[in-house]
Amino acid sequence: MYQNAFVIDGLEYCKADRSYFESLQKGGITAVHVTIVYHENARETLTRFAEWNRFFEDHNDIIIPVMSVNDIEVAKKTNKVGIFFGAQNCSPIDDEIGLVEVMRKQGLLIMQLTYNNQSLLASGCYEKNDSGVTNFGKQVISEMNRVGMIIDMSHSAEKSTLETIEISKKPICISHANPSFAVQALRNKSNDVLKSLINSNGFFGFSLYPFHLPNNINCSLDEFCQMIYKTADLLGNVENLGIGSDLCLGQPLSILEWMRNGKWSKKMNYGEGSKDNACWPDPLKWFASPADMINVYKGLIKCGFSESDADNIIGNNWFRFLQKNL
Amino acid sequence: MYQNAFVIDGLEYCKADRSYFESLQKGGITAVHVTIVYHENARETLTRFAEWNRFFEDHNDIIIPVMSVNDIEVAKKTNKVGIFFGAQNCSPIDDEIGLVEVMRKQGLLIMQLTYNNQSLLASGCYEKNDSGVTNFGKQVISEMNRVGMIIDMSHSAEKSTLETIEISKKPICISHANPSFAVQALRNKSNDVLKSLINSNGFFGFSLYPFHLPNNINCSLDEFCQMIYKTADLLGNVENLGIGSDLCLGQPLSILEWMRNGKWSKKMNYGEGSKDNACWPDPLKWFASPADMINVYKGLIKCGFSESDADNIIGNNWFRFLQKNL
Repeated sequence: MYQNAFVIDGLEYCKADRSYFESLQKGGITAVHVTIVYHENARETLTRFAEWNRFFEDHNDIIIPVMSVNDIEVAKKTNKVGIFFGAQNCSPIDDEIGLVEVMRKQGLLIMQLTYNNQSLLASGCYEKNDSGVTNFGKQVISEMNRVGMIIDMSHSAEKSTLETIEISKKPICISHANPSFAVQALRNKSNDVLKSLINSNGFFGFSLYPFHLPNNINCSLDEFCQMIYKTADLLGNVENLGIGSDLCLGQPLSILEWMRNGKWSKKMNYGEGSKDNACWPDPLKWFASPADMINVYKGLIKCGFSESDADNIIGNNWFRFLQKNL
Repeated sequence: MYQNAFVIDGLEYCKADRSYFESLQKGGITAVHVTIVYHENARETLTRFAEWNRFFEDHNDIIIPVMSVNDIEVAKKTNKVGIFFGAQNCSPIDDEIGLVEVMRKQGLLIMQLTYNNQSLLASGCYEKNDSGVTNFGKQVISEMNRVGMIIDMSHSAEKSTLETIEISKKPICISHANPSFAVQALRNKSNDVLKSLINSNGFFGFSLYPFHLPNNINCSLDEFCQMIYKTADLLGNVENLGIGSDLCLGQPLSILEWMRNGKWSKKMNYGEGSKDNACWPDPLKWFASPADMINVYKGLIKCGFSESDADNIIGNNWFRFLQKNL
């Protein structure tokens, strides 16, 4: 039952303010994986943490920081929303292995090794050539395993992802993406990656970002849920699947441009959009706010999942994965 | 009894390596306030934390990090040495109020508002004019109170110190200095400061740095202990007194020069030394290593303190002060 499950969204990057926090609470969301940085370096990441500390101080009647799964249980019991942080790139550690532990202590629980392009650690999914995991990357994977920071390969290239799954001594996650069999997109994942991920007990979160969905902004709730059903069938697995909506509400176009171009490019890159379609995609009608997670839950049951499976996909699976790997 | 007391040194800045950690353990030191930075900014401070995390990883049979007094109790029970961190300047927070909490989470338990010169927060004891506590300083004091980071005014100017004692809602410390009545030195503290500090339940740690002692490098153990006895008598207080040795072993001259000049000066400043006496002072014969803390303990009893008072001054007082204010 939705009300009794841990409802966990495995990726959001919405404009943080009280109305956002209220919408999470009203939507019955137990916890959210919030992207705290995309391209910020170590020093800039401290400012992001400072900003969030202020949110926790000012809105402690609604949100609490998650440093371990115990805090998610507290959130559930007190009807608050737990926030746990991830970085979509490895920029917070600069070029220093020791900053993995420093950032973990600050509350960075998840980190992508790459964001679309080449990083110091591995290749992103937009690169023509895939370096695989670099020397520094191997060290960082081992250090992330040691300190309990979860590896996320949502935006990484194929070989880099497969190598990371093999090198990492702990299961990794792909917090927000979809299977390539449903939609061919650079960001989506091949059957090989999906199988390797799940066989190593890794976790897959399905994305609701229109560019990664069948029929884009016209994707129906049923099409979305059928994609999950087919994936579960293909993999013979439900317990390692969840949602990572990639919801980005209230962000101006300048943020999207910065996400796509950071500070590295003089040319405009449009990511999965194009020059004629440069803006944020329109939101899905059935998933236009965090509170619409209940629609996904109902859709899962309608398309054939049991209530227990729907409970697990809507968040209990995320909870158990975090419990094992943080 | 020395063996049963918490033996706590309220300030050291020795070259960190295994032999130093062993000397602390062999000397029966329960915990040490280690200076992690002098002039490092926020980003540089992260590297210092990363270096110490590595020490904790590599030497976890001897040292443990102290995030709360509970860790000091663990250190005592397991015969390890607890390390708790302080900054001798406010450089780790740059100009950002939010970095107080960020640094506290990283393990910075104590911070001086100034180091000899003017800072963004207050004046140091080497300044001709004393600004008192600045606008930013007032905000930082309040924030340090909120997050449980202890204010240290060891290197601060008189008015700045008196104002801080008044503004702070929690007791502050002067972790390492001596009374001016014993030795006139810019770094030592007037009777006014001592009384104001103790009356507000603040803490005073006596320094063993020769430049702050009666008779400098020739100071006898008895002279040192008599100074403590006279201070206790003057203040009518033993429970807020302890040791902050300022022991700086194994550091090259370049470190002393950096401590004195940071990056702000093109001229050489010699601190409490002089051009003809520019080097580290020779160590005291009876306090040449952390293990010599037992000499101080014996000296305290010889000069008239009860065993119980000596237990308290050698560390139980520090323990209780930290317990109340972290």
